Amino acid sequence: MQLDLTDATWTDVRDADTDLALLPVGSTEQHGPHAPLGTDALHAETVAEAGAERYDGTVAVAPTISVGIAEEHRQFPGTLWVSPDTFRRYVRDVVGSLAYHGLDRVVVVNGHGGNVPALGEVTATITRHDDAYAVPFTWFDAVDDHGSDMGHGGPLETALLRATHPELVREDRIEEAREGASEGWGDWVSSTNLAHDSAEFTENGVVGDPGAGDADRGEELRELAANALDRLLQAVAERDVSRPADR
Amino acid sequence: MQLDLTDATWTDVRDADTDLALLPVGSTEQHGPHAPLGTDALHAETVAEAGAERYDGTVAVAPTISVGIAEEHRQFPGTLWVSPDTFRRYVRDVVGSLAYHGLDRVVVVNGHGGNVPALGEVTATITRHDDAYAVPFTWFDAVDDHGSDMGHGGPLETALLRATHPELVREDRIEEAREGASEGWGDWVSSTNLAHDSAEFTENGVVGDPGAGDADRGEELRELAANALDRLLQAVAERDVSRPADR
Amino acid sequence: MQLDLTDATWTDVRDADTDLALLPVGSTEQHGPHAPLGTDALHAETVAEAGAERYDGTVAVAPTISVGIAEEHRQFPGTLWVSPDTFRRYVRDVVGSLAYHGLDRVVVVNGHGGNVPALGEVTATITRHDDAYAVPFTWFDAVDDHGSDMGHGGPLETALLRATHPELVREDRIEEAREGASEGWGDWVSSTNLAHDSAEFTENGVVGDPGAGDADRGEELRELAANALDRLLQAVAERDVSRPADR
Amino acid sequence: MQLDLTDATWTDVRDADTDLALLPVGSTEQHGPHAPLGTDALHAETVAEAGAERYDGTVAVAPTISVGIAEEHRQFPGTLWVSPDTFRRYVRDVVGSLAYHGLDRVVVVNGHGGNVPALGEVTATITRHDDAYAVPFTWFDAVDDHGSDMGHGGPLETALLRATHPELVREDRIEEAREGASEGWGDWVSSTNLAHDSAEFTENGVVGDPGAGDADRGEELRELAANALDRLLQAVAERDVSRPADR
Amino acid sequence: MQLDLTDATWTDVRDADTDLALLPVGSTEQHGPHAPLGTDALHAETVAEAGAERYDGTVAVAPTISVGIAEEHRQFPGTLWVSPDTFRRYVRDVVGSLAYHGLDRVVVVNGHGGNVPALGEVTATITRHDDAYAVPFTWFDAVDDHGSDMGHGGPLETALLRATHPELVREDRIEEAREGASEGWGDWVSSTNLAHDSAEFTENGVVGDPGAGDADRGEELRELAANALDRLLQAVAERDVSRPADR
Amino acid sequence: MQLDLTDATWTDVRDADTDLALLPVGSTEQHGPHAPLGTDALHAETVAEAGAERYDGTVAVAPTISVGIAEEHRQFPGTLWVSPDTFRRYVRDVVGSLAYHGLDRVVVVNGHGGNVPALGEVTATITRHDDAYAVPFTWFDAVDDHGSDMGHGGPLETALLRATHPELVREDRIEEAREGASEGWGDWVSSTNLAHDSAEFTENGVVGDPGAGDADRGEELRELAANALDRLLQAVAERDVSRPADR
Repeated sequence: MQLDLTDATWTDVRDADTDLALLPVGSTEQHGPHAPLGTDALHAETVAEAGAERYDGTVAVAPTISVGIAEEHRQFPGTLWVSPDTFRRYVRDVVGSLAYHGLDRVVVVNGHGGNVPALGEVTATITRHDDAYAVPFTWFDAVDDHGSDMGHGGPLETALLRATHPELVREDRIEEAREGASEGWGDWVSSTNLAHDSAEFTENGVVGDPGAGDADRGEELRELAANALDRLLQAVAERDVSRPADR
Repeated sequence: MQLDLTDATWTDVRDADTDLALLPVGSTEQHGPHAPLGTDALHAETVAEAGAERYDGTVAVAPTISVGIAEEHRQFPGTLWVSPDTFRRYVRDVVGSLAYHGLDRVVVVNGHGGNVPALGEVTATITRHDDAYAVPFTWFDAVDDHGSDMGHGGPLETALLRATHPELVREDRIEEAREGASEGWGDWVSSTNLAHDSAEFTENGVVGDPGAGDADRGEELRELAANALDRLLQAVAERDVSRPADR
Repeated sequence: MQLDLTDATWTDVRDADTDLALLPVGSTEQHGPHAPLGTDALHAETVAEAGAERYDGTVAVAPTISVGIAEEHRQFPGTLWVSPDTFRRYVRDVVGSLAYHGLDRVVVVNGHGGNVPALGEVTATITRHDDAYAVPFTWFDAVDDHGSDMGHGGPLETALLRATHPELVREDRIEEAREGASEGWGDWVSSTNLAHDSAEFTENGVVGDPGAGDADRGEELRELAANALDRLLQAVAERDVSRPADR
Repeated sequence: MQLDLTDATWTDVRDADTDLALLPVGSTEQHGPHAPLGTDALHAETVAEAGAERYDGTVAVAPTISVGIAEEHRQFPGTLWVSPDTFRRYVRDVVGSLAYHGLDRVVVVNGHGGNVPALGEVTATITRHDDAYAVPFTWFDAVDDHGSDMGHGGPLETALLRATHPELVREDRIEEAREGASEGWGDWVSSTNLAHDSAEFTENGVVGDPGAGDADRGEELRELAANALDRLLQAVAERDVSRPADR
Repeated sequence: MQLDLTDATWTDVRDADTDLALLPVGSTEQHGPHAPLGTDALHAETVAEAGAERYDGTVAVAPTISVGIAEEHRQFPGTLWVSPDTFRRYVRDVVGSLAYHGLDRVVVVNGHGGNVPALGEVTATITRHDDAYAVPFTWFDAVDDHGSDMGHGGPLETALLRATHPELVREDRIEEAREGASEGWGDWVSSTNLAHDSAEFTENGVVGDPGAGDADRGEELRELAANALDRLLQAVAERDVSRPADR
Repeated sequence: MQLDLTDATWTDVRDADTDLALLPVGSTEQHGPHAPLGTDALHAETVAEAGAERYDGTVAVAPTISVGIAEEHRQFPGTLWVSPDTFRRYVRDVVGSLAYHGLDRVVVVNGHGGNVPALGEVTATITRHDDAYAVPFTWFDAVDDHGSDMGHGGPLETALLRATHPELVREDRIEEAREGASEGWGDWVSSTNLAHDSAEFTENGVVGDPGAGDADRGEELRELAANALDRLLQAVAERDVSRPADR
């Protein structure tokens, strides 16, 4: 059950009985000619809400951080970003304020691949050095076999949009999107990606086929992600979060 | 006319012909027992959208930064904050990414008094040292005579909520809100506020009478703020933003 | 009674019985063709000494920080500045060292408008996170009705110089100063100042009429400021500075 | 062909004709009771030298950075670490000094999984904002099918040590190492690793079977890694490293 | 000839024809029971003024930075300090603002041993990376054979005070000062000082005999230091400050 | 007796009974046409090992930090450096991790003059603010009368190389090295070094005569340095490292 920290009053939070919080983080960045810049933020929010609703207990849900680490897409107009360092500081501070109120078991619900390394780092820092336990959850890593289809502005993200924000998918540009898409992410030699910017390997920003996922698939993805998040919340709620003893 | 950077695609931004952008910033913090924690973020968004719609030309609107500088309210559960330094970095980075795409005349639309000093500083830094011109606009400073009624979770903020998000105002707690409110902000001696935290002078977080503003007043506030922002956008669009010559 | 930390020995400080300190901060920046660059630092020092003398008890007075936040005047030769971040660090460190010796109730006596936002921020940070209580005191905000006349290098500052450092006022340039002055500070649209640098609105750096304040007025200003600071010291000395309990 | 920057003189570097450099980075951290703390640094050095020798051209090899990001192993005595931020700064500065001399195509040869996210970030930052092109190369990601056997102090690392530094493998503790080992890395729920420290899931620090790799396998690993690095150097030498145009 | 940046107006600086500036930096720290906390700042100011007066040309003199790096004396009440990092930033920013106006050959006139390493570092950084040339000048290193007598609150510093600020020397505590003094600075083994704080080796903060220098010696010191600074100003004025070519 | 933290296992460190550690730090920088870039790192390592072996007790020896503060040599190809700030952070973090395991009496064994000021600062910071006691030891300051012969790539450094790494001394370039050498370090006026880069005063990077020290002298230097370090370790082991009481 979600306690939305935008809508709730401070007295509602005072009266709630939980130490669990979700912090949705996304990105505002190109997702091809057919999908909105806000895709990753919208998806993080969608999954956070669905997971919180599924969970048998109260979970505070913080407002979404909509701009993340996306400089790799800077060649595409409208892409917004902050530096990795700024992003980590912002997330760490927000989690610190959640923990100040006893909401000290925090799952950062993430909708953007570019945020993953920074979230791994900052949740470890928080857990080791601050007064909170935090872990990241990236929704498209927790949707079973669908994961291998991820791409960028591709089958999964477009499908989930069709289920949740169909008006934001430009169906009349899908063909164009497909044609300018690259097949895979990056430009690899010896397991090293030589490309630091997505414009080095994709013409229109798309990776994968945005036509390969309809609204039904989108519903399934939401379901899978929400269930995975629910299981994670249960595990986080029960976990012994004290740090292990020195050997 | 607003170009919403959450909903638009990168090709939409590429095809738009503007150098103007709005960046709404708010806060997620106590607003008494009757008003939502998200009040300041919601209001910043409301005003930014209304101002952009009124403006005769295209204005990009970035996603709202919902957590700002609010440690002064930390004693009230649910209040979120980042440090002033983190806030400035985040705003500066986002504006920098807007400017990267030529959206280099930016008005930061602000809904929270606690953000004002940091926004003055960071917009000056951006204008002097980065490739953009930026100014802050705090809506409740631009609503004519209403301004003196501001308070916190008081007449103005509650009125605007009644006009835009009536379901988020707990009307049944207005009496309680009024009774625990303080009359003014701070604890002053010799023009110095001795109180660094709001809990030093308000019992329930409210300053002013939340009953003193109905939805009609809220509509008027939105109208006034939107008009003021429209005028500001015109001035920013036309301004010679080159720095003056050394004397 | 002032304990001057430049003149005192460490044994004098050891033997003093007080937890009160003043830290004067000013600026070295253009004040028109008639007034010295050091005006703000000199005034902060004047007021700090006068206030300490008036106070019934011992008050340590730290050496003046003469360079503050003044990049807005950079187009005028001789103006010195540090970044806001550097300024906050410097003030915070100095206050930390005062507090190390038990001088942990500190009033930062300020002579420069450009320092105000940073001082509000850093004194709050110190009070919440360090082992001291600190507040800022800006002298020209505490001189009753005179305040509205402030300007820059205008009536008040010139008057106070005439009372305390008459040799530093170039009376033969007053006419020139008046003629190149602007009437108000900034360039405003919708309550937003579009000008980040003073050179955008004043030809010679002056705001207001530097002829409108003689030495008598200067003496009155010193008296008013000293009394206000005395009252503030009393309040700070008696204040319960423990942070309020969480709600 | 390697130009060792520890052994060479400055005149040797001046006379060399190359823009390629390798920067080996490792870690000094627990590798079970049988393998030395320096395993990751030794391996990075081994692979860098072997790759440089294989390459048909001159490659400068910087001295190894032996302490990396390893706080996750802190419960095991002797583990050394720096913060991720310090690590990134150190690597960025060193690469900057290489580039100052025209060695501006840099491969960071990495021997430690915990360094991977930070190296991805810092090489992107360098490439986008500094005067160099940099990519990371993690040797155990480039050894074909062996990769899935990685573990920690497990088959691969122990095998490579047996080939290169047999005297540092405590063969008499292999049985003990095997018995206290965990099977996999981490403690996973919904694709999220709940464990931030290795001591949460391994008793003696080992993951995988350290007996499952003899010196022959070690030689094969060195060969595979050297070949992969050689191919990468060729690709880096020929790559157009200018950043792509804005769309 | 000195152009005092506290007393001058901006028009005076505009009309001056020089690129030379002095920035006096001192410390506010214990100097025994007989000498004032401000000794180092006063001496830096004395020497800067005397050197500027001697120099045949105009030299701008910035206001004194009175608090430096002195945490080593923290056990003695009244000692003030900032962190080395804060000190470097403050000096760098001030020098940057001097250089903005073309005062880009700066001698930092120093009165405190504890500032020496940081000044060496920051002047090198400024010279290499900013738009200015800067060097430090520590007065007691430039007084010929007297130098070996330096101590702390000892012969030299007390003598110079007797010449310049006799009212600040507590002559009636000289005997006490002498008795509690240590003979040398530090606690040395193998050329390493094991003591990080002065309280580890001096009882009352004094090193050396404060009785061993009368006002005449003080005058001689001022003369020697002023002459040395004059020579340095000449050398700085004439120096080719372009950085040498790469080899 | 040395416990080498590269070769040891974590269980070896667990079983050792000591709180003493050495951290060798050097530089990779020009040492003339005849001596290797790695001279300073090699010498720090040599001395650390010899000192640890001499000491009657166990001393952990961390891996060498090979790149230090050497921007002053940047005009000479192959010279590597990090900023002073990065260097201090790296050293502080590594010492912090040593102390985490109880190795909290640390001697930083230094082979490079350019590191000296930063090491003085960071060891003081560590000792005052972290959970460790640290001091720097610079080998060439502890070799009795030899010290005055130091130079750069000169008699001492070349002699020690001849004793420890004769294959790295290009004997056939000694004549050339001598001819392009300068006699002293720097370009001095009034005790101030006007040169921030070594290229301002030495043609080939050498200071002093590299022919003036044979392998025997090198052995003597190693002996002297090792003995000095042994004495220092004894003093550090026995020292009361609690900070002195406030006066």
